[in-house]
Amino acid sequence: MLKLYHNDMSTCSQKVRLVLAEKNLDWEDGHLNLRAGEHQKEWYIKLNPRAVVPTLIDGDIVVPESNVINEYIDERFPDPPLKPDTAFGRARMRLWTKQLDEGVHDAGIAVISFALAFRHQYITRGEAGQAMLEKIPDPIKRERRRDVIEKGLDSAHFRIAIARMLELFADMEKTLAAQPWLVGDHYTIADAAFTPYVVRLDHLDLIGLLDRTPRVAGWYRRLQQRPSFQTAITRWENADYLALMKRAGRESWPKIQTIMREL
Amino acid sequence: MLKLYHNDMSTCSQKVRLVLAEKNLDWEDGHLNLRAGEHQKEWYIKLNPRAVVPTLIDGDIVVPESNVINEYIDERFPDPPLKPDTAFGRARMRLWTKQLDEGVHDAGIAVISFALAFRHQYITRGEAGQAMLEKIPDPIKRERRRDVIEKGLDSAHFRIAIARMLELFADMEKTLAAQPWLVGDHYTIADAAFTPYVVRLDHLDLIGLLDRTPRVAGWYRRLQQRPSFQTAITRWENADYLALMKRAGRESWPKIQTIMREL
Repeated sequence: MLKLYHNDMSTCSQKVRLVLAEKNLDWEDGHLNLRAGEHQKEWYIKLNPRAVVPTLIDGDIVVPESNVINEYIDERFPDPPLKPDTAFGRARMRLWTKQLDEGVHDAGIAVISFALAFRHQYITRGEAGQAMLEKIPDPIKRERRRDVIEKGLDSAHFRIAIARMLELFADMEKTLAAQPWLVGDHYTIADAAFTPYVVRLDHLDLIGLLDRTPRVAGWYRRLQQRPSFQTAITRWENADYLALMKRAGRESWPKIQTIMREL
Repeated sequence: MLKLYHNDMSTCSQKVRLVLAEKNLDWEDGHLNLRAGEHQKEWYIKLNPRAVVPTLIDGDIVVPESNVINEYIDERFPDPPLKPDTAFGRARMRLWTKQLDEGVHDAGIAVISFALAFRHQYITRGEAGQAMLEKIPDPIKRERRRDVIEKGLDSAHFRIAIARMLELFADMEKTLAAQPWLVGDHYTIADAAFTPYVVRLDHLDLIGLLDRTPRVAGWYRRLQQRPSFQTAITRWENADYLALMKRAGRESWPKIQTIMREL
């Protein structure tokens, strides 16, 4: 059986759980507590040198990185197919998914999440928080995160992150004017991949970031009606943590609205 | 016939030309002069909304983004195959190529190239240079570039870029201890994808960045012996520009050595 090392509320974990759910695949639950630093333990770094979730285990095979995992799952378990059946369709799908690696994840949603909520965990922990930060292997990601933890909403990265998310939603809005899903008439890995990014805004009570893009809001409502949403997202929600996230988001909303007006 | 909009010395263009050359495909030459801003003209932005090279035209089909183009070419023209024949092999290939989108390109080699050489073109042009900068659609990329143009080697991004490249070469060194190519016994899209990043260091006379990783240096020598290297890289070299790049790199080498010692 497949095994997934993942975390309840992590976007990249949700993304892989969605694809597993759309394919009705069973998997063994390898949940990691990120707040306890379980993803930075030596045994896990052997599987995932970047110390991030998720990691898929398929017999002897270890696959890290959610975009790579999702294409792997689709190639190994092609029914129902979640990639388009033409080279051009797959190219269009990858033009969406690669944007997550290019900045929508690390410099977009991760910056927003840390600036609003997760930074407090690092700060409260003092030296232990500092140690977790120093363990991030990628120097680009580490230095960005350091700035966001220090400065919160006042980090220059925060404003850029809001701009990047709005740019993404504007692109999605244009695409969804012509077709129901991101790559055409069928739900694909691209739709699964972007779902958690709107879920995170929802969890932070920042769904107002979709006010300018009603088709994206409609696409999100259709995603919520799919059975995979319940299986992969809702049933993993952590109520205490969700309450904390919602509060942090609501407190920041006036400032975010100001940034939106200035952009 | 395929048509490629590209630029002589751009890394992402070299990467696609390598795959076209490895497959012995003919293509129509759509060279764009980036220094004249041809990639920011309205007709080109309709093909490539991010205003970057390359773009592949295959009949009615338009494919931007070099990683996506290379997988598209391999799926459309499978002989000789440049993707591994197993799902796990393709996953390993994508674990390499996605690193370019994640930072090795924009926050790595592009920062180094701009800090050393390309920034002078922006500065000399004054308002026209400023206008080119403002036209970069991605806010993350635009703000990073603004800082690098202003501060050159003193930008915080420069030190991070050197660290990221050294981390990449250390990863490649480990992989190349066990196998001749990045994904095993055969040359794949991953080898093509990383070739231009070492070529750029070579063009900037910074090949000393490989001093700690002799297997990567050996891999580069083997790449240079393939006929595709001549077709896709050497024959497109611009001698005047190359002289300028080498001079800029040589002047910066002592400072880079200091950064390397401190990392």
